[in-house]
Amino acid sequence: MAGVVDLWRNEDGIATAMDILRQRFGARVETGQALREQHAHTTTWLRNQPPDAVICPTSTEEVQAIMAICSQYRVPVIPFGTGSSLEGHVNAPAGGISLDFRDMNAILQVNAEDMDVVVQPGVTRKALNAHLRATGLFFSVDPGADASLGGMAATGASGTNAVRYGTMKDNVLALKAVLPSGELVQTAARARKSSAGYDLTRLMVGSEGTLGIITELTLRLRGIPEAVSAATCSFPDVAAACNAVIATIQYGIPVARIELLDALQVRAVNAYSKLSLPEAPLLLLEFHGSDAGVAEDAARFGDIAAETGGSGFTFTKREEDRNRLWQARHDAYWAGLQLRPGAKGLSTDVCVPVSRLADCVSAAQDRLASMGMLAPIVGHVGDGNFHCLLLVDTDNPAEVAQAEGFIGWLNELAISMDGTCTGEHGIGQGKAPYLERELGSGAMAMMRAIKRGIDPHNILNPGKMGLT
Amino acid sequence: MAGVVDLWRNEDGIATAMDILRQRFGARVETGQALREQHAHTTTWLRNQPPDAVICPTSTEEVQAIMAICSQYRVPVIPFGTGSSLEGHVNAPAGGISLDFRDMNAILQVNAEDMDVVVQPGVTRKALNAHLRATGLFFSVDPGADASLGGMAATGASGTNAVRYGTMKDNVLALKAVLPSGELVQTAARARKSSAGYDLTRLMVGSEGTLGIITELTLRLRGIPEAVSAATCSFPDVAAACNAVIATIQYGIPVARIELLDALQVRAVNAYSKLSLPEAPLLLLEFHGSDAGVAEDAARFGDIAAETGGSGFTFTKREEDRNRLWQARHDAYWAGLQLRPGAKGLSTDVCVPVSRLADCVSAAQDRLASMGMLAPIVGHVGDGNFHCLLLVDTDNPAEVAQAEGFIGWLNELAISMDGTCTGEHGIGQGKAPYLERELGSGAMAMMRAIKRGIDPHNILNPGKMGLT
Repeated sequence: MAGVVDLWRNEDGIATAMDILRQRFGARVETGQALREQHAHTTTWLRNQPPDAVICPTSTEEVQAIMAICSQYRVPVIPFGTGSSLEGHVNAPAGGISLDFRDMNAILQVNAEDMDVVVQPGVTRKALNAHLRATGLFFSVDPGADASLGGMAATGASGTNAVRYGTMKDNVLALKAVLPSGELVQTAARARKSSAGYDLTRLMVGSEGTLGIITELTLRLRGIPEAVSAATCSFPDVAAACNAVIATIQYGIPVARIELLDALQVRAVNAYSKLSLPEAPLLLLEFHGSDAGVAEDAARFGDIAAETGGSGFTFTKREEDRNRLWQARHDAYWAGLQLRPGAKGLSTDVCVPVSRLADCVSAAQDRLASMGMLAPIVGHVGDGNFHCLLLVDTDNPAEVAQAEGFIGWLNELAISMDGTCTGEHGIGQGKAPYLERELGSGAMAMMRAIKRGIDPHNILNPGKMGLT
Repeated sequence: MAGVVDLWRNEDGIATAMDILRQRFGARVETGQALREQHAHTTTWLRNQPPDAVICPTSTEEVQAIMAICSQYRVPVIPFGTGSSLEGHVNAPAGGISLDFRDMNAILQVNAEDMDVVVQPGVTRKALNAHLRATGLFFSVDPGADASLGGMAATGASGTNAVRYGTMKDNVLALKAVLPSGELVQTAARARKSSAGYDLTRLMVGSEGTLGIITELTLRLRGIPEAVSAATCSFPDVAAACNAVIATIQYGIPVARIELLDALQVRAVNAYSKLSLPEAPLLLLEFHGSDAGVAEDAARFGDIAAETGGSGFTFTKREEDRNRLWQARHDAYWAGLQLRPGAKGLSTDVCVPVSRLADCVSAAQDRLASMGMLAPIVGHVGDGNFHCLLLVDTDNPAEVAQAEGFIGWLNELAISMDGTCTGEHGIGQGKAPYLERELGSGAMAMMRAIKRGIDPHNILNPGKMGLT
C-alpha cells in the first residue's frame, strides 16, 4: 500500500544510540522480535515495520534523556500507547526506538471543582473513568478501543459521542511534550480558556507523534448526566435517516450519540447477536440530561423520525433496555467480520458536511455492490463521519488492489464534497497520499515548515502524514 | 510600557515596496497621517505606531500580490479588521503596510443544513447575524465590540457566551490564509471534524497575524434557541457568587452566559443607568433552550443561589424584561468610565481555574483598595476569566507606573494559580513580557520555531507576542 515503504535506516547512528541507551537503561532496552513486532502492530492489515528496540519510560526526565540521545545520533523515536491506531502510526519504517508509555499511567490530579484532570499519557480512557466514578465526573471521548489517552491525543481521536462533547481537540486543555532537543514544552495553563500565544495544545493534538512526545495531559471532564435515555428507529433508506439526523441537529436537540448502521450492518448484527431488527438503515441515539429533559429530547426526535419516514421508534431510560437497544452498535465490528470469516477488516474514515452524507453513503453502497465487495457501514452521522468495513482476503493481491481502489475512490469522493479522507483515524501511513489532494500544496508547505522548524532532523515518527 | 518599542525600520525596502505598490494600486495606497494613525489605533492607551500606508484589498489575489511584494523587499504587513483589539495588535512598530479588510466583506455561502457559513474576513459579527436572521441560525461568539470576523479569528476572541458555545477556537471550522511566500493555505475541509494533518485552523486562530493573513473563514453556526430566559442574583461576597458558579457548571446546567459584576461595578451602573441594584456582587445569567428547559434551568440555578447565600433572585423570559435585567452588563464599560470622568480604562484579562476565581478576584480587589485605584470588575466567570477596568489618568506617569505594576502583579498571581495572563484579549504588545513567564522557555522555543519556519524574514505583524 502506498505510504508503507521502508525508509533509509541510519545504521551507524542506531547502533551507537543503542549502546548508549543500554548503558543507561540496561535490560529495559528490549529487543525481542515478538515484542518489537507487537509494537509495530496496528489493528489494520498494514505491513509490520518493527522498531529496533522498545523502552518503557517511567518519567518525563527519562523521555528527555532518551530523546537527547536519539537526537544526537539521529535515531527515530516513535511513541506507543496501546497500539490500537488504524493507520500505521506506530510502524517504524526507518527503525528506531519505540517508547511504550504503559508505565507512565498515573492520574496526577483530579480537580473536581474545575472539572479537569491531569494524567500521564499511559492512562487508558477506561482506567480514567473507573478512577473518576465517585466524583460524578467522566471523560467523554470514546473511540471504542480502550486506548491510552496519550495515543488518543496524538491521533486526535473521537468516536460516538463527539457530536455532543467534541473530539480530543476539544477536550485536551493543556499538555506537556518533549521536543527533539530534549526540551520540555508546557503548551498552556490549566485555565479553561486562553489567548496566550499560539495554540500549541491543539497543534500537538493530532500531530501523530511527529512534533513532540506527550508526557502529561490536562483533560476536560463532564458531569455524569442525571439521566440517560436511548432510542432506535429504522428508515426506508439512508437518505431518510440522514434527513432525520439533519433535522435533529438543526432543532438543537442535544443528542449525546447518533449512530447509523446500514442494512448490511443490521443483517450482520442480527446474525451475530440473534436479533431480529428490520434489515433497513437504523439510527441509534443516546440522550443525556435531566429526567424530564431526556424524555423531551427523545419525544422530539420521535416526531422528527415520523416526519422523515422512520418506523419502529423505540425509547427507554432503563439501563438494561438501553444496552439491549445499543447491542447492535456494540457488536458492529465483530458482527461485521463474521459476514466473511477469515477476512480482515479495512476501515475507511471519510467525513463530509452532513448535507452531503446521504449522497456519500449511497454512492459508497452502490459502488461496493457493483464491485461485489462486502462492507457493512456504521457512521457517527451527527458529525458526517462514517466507516465502511471492507472485508478482504489480504492474501489475495487482486482483492487488496480492489479494496485500495475503493478506498482511494471514496477518499476522492469525500474530498470533492468538501469533506475529508479522515474524520478521526488520522493520516499515518495509509492516507498520506490523500492529504495533499485534500488540502493542497499550501497547507502541505505550511505543515512541512512547522515540522522542519521543530524537528529539523526528522527523528520524530518519520514517514507519517506524508510530511517527510 | 514594555513591549511597545520602535523596531528597526527597513527604510530602503519600505521605499521600494511603496513605489511598486503605487504602480499597481495607485491612489489605493493611502498615506494620509490621520488614516495611518487610525489604523494603528487601539482601544487602549498604548502608544500609536502608524504604518507607512494603508491598502484595502478587494480579493485574496490582491492580498497575495501585496504579500509577494512586501516579502521580496522585507516590509511588514499588518492585517486590520475594525481596530477594536486591546493589546496593540495593529500597531506598526517597524512600519510597513496595514491591510484593511473593510472591502472584503462578502458572505460567500450560507450552508443552513450544515450549520456553517463561509465569509470574507471583513464581515463583522453583527452584519453576519443580521444576514442570518431568516435562517434561524446565528454565530455565537460575542466579544462585545462589533469586531470583524477576521480580527476575531486572528486574536482568538470570545466573550460572554463562550461558556456555552466556546471561543473562536471552537467556532472556526476552516480558513484560508496567505503565507509570506504569497502562497494560499486552505487549513481544512468543511467537514465538521477532521484528523487530516496538523490542525492549521487552530494554529492560525489566535496567531495575531504573525503566521498568515486570513482571507476567508468557514464558521460554525448555532440554532437560535426556541426560548431565552435571564436571571440575576446578588451575593454577599465574591466567594459566594463564585461558589454558585462552580455548582452551576458542575450540575451541568447549560448556562448560555454567566457574568459577575463586583460591588463597585454595580455602583457604577446604578449611577449611570439610574438603577437601584444592591451594591453587592451580582451574577447575571442567560439560558437558551426549549420553553420548559429554560424555566427548569433557571429554577435549578435559583436553588443553587439560595444554597450559596444569594438573594434577590429574579428570572424572566420576556425580552424587554431580559434587557432590563442585563442592562447592568451592557452598560458596564461606559458606566465604569463614568466613575472617573476623563480617565482612560485599562483592562486586565486574567483567566484562572474556576476553583481559584474567588481568591483571585478578592486578592485583586484588596490590592486595588490598598493602592487607592478605582477599577470596577466584570467577569465571564463560567470560564474563570475577569477584567479589572483600571481608571487611569494616562498623563500622570506615576499613575501609569502604578497601573502597570498592578497589571504585572495580577498577571503573576494568575500564573501562580495555574491560570493565564490573557483569557481572550491576546498577547499583542502589552502582554509580551508575561507569555514566557506563563508557559516557560520550551513553549517560547516551539512558538519561535514555528514562526521562523513559516515567516523566516519576520514580515508578518512583527513585534507582537514577544516572538521577534
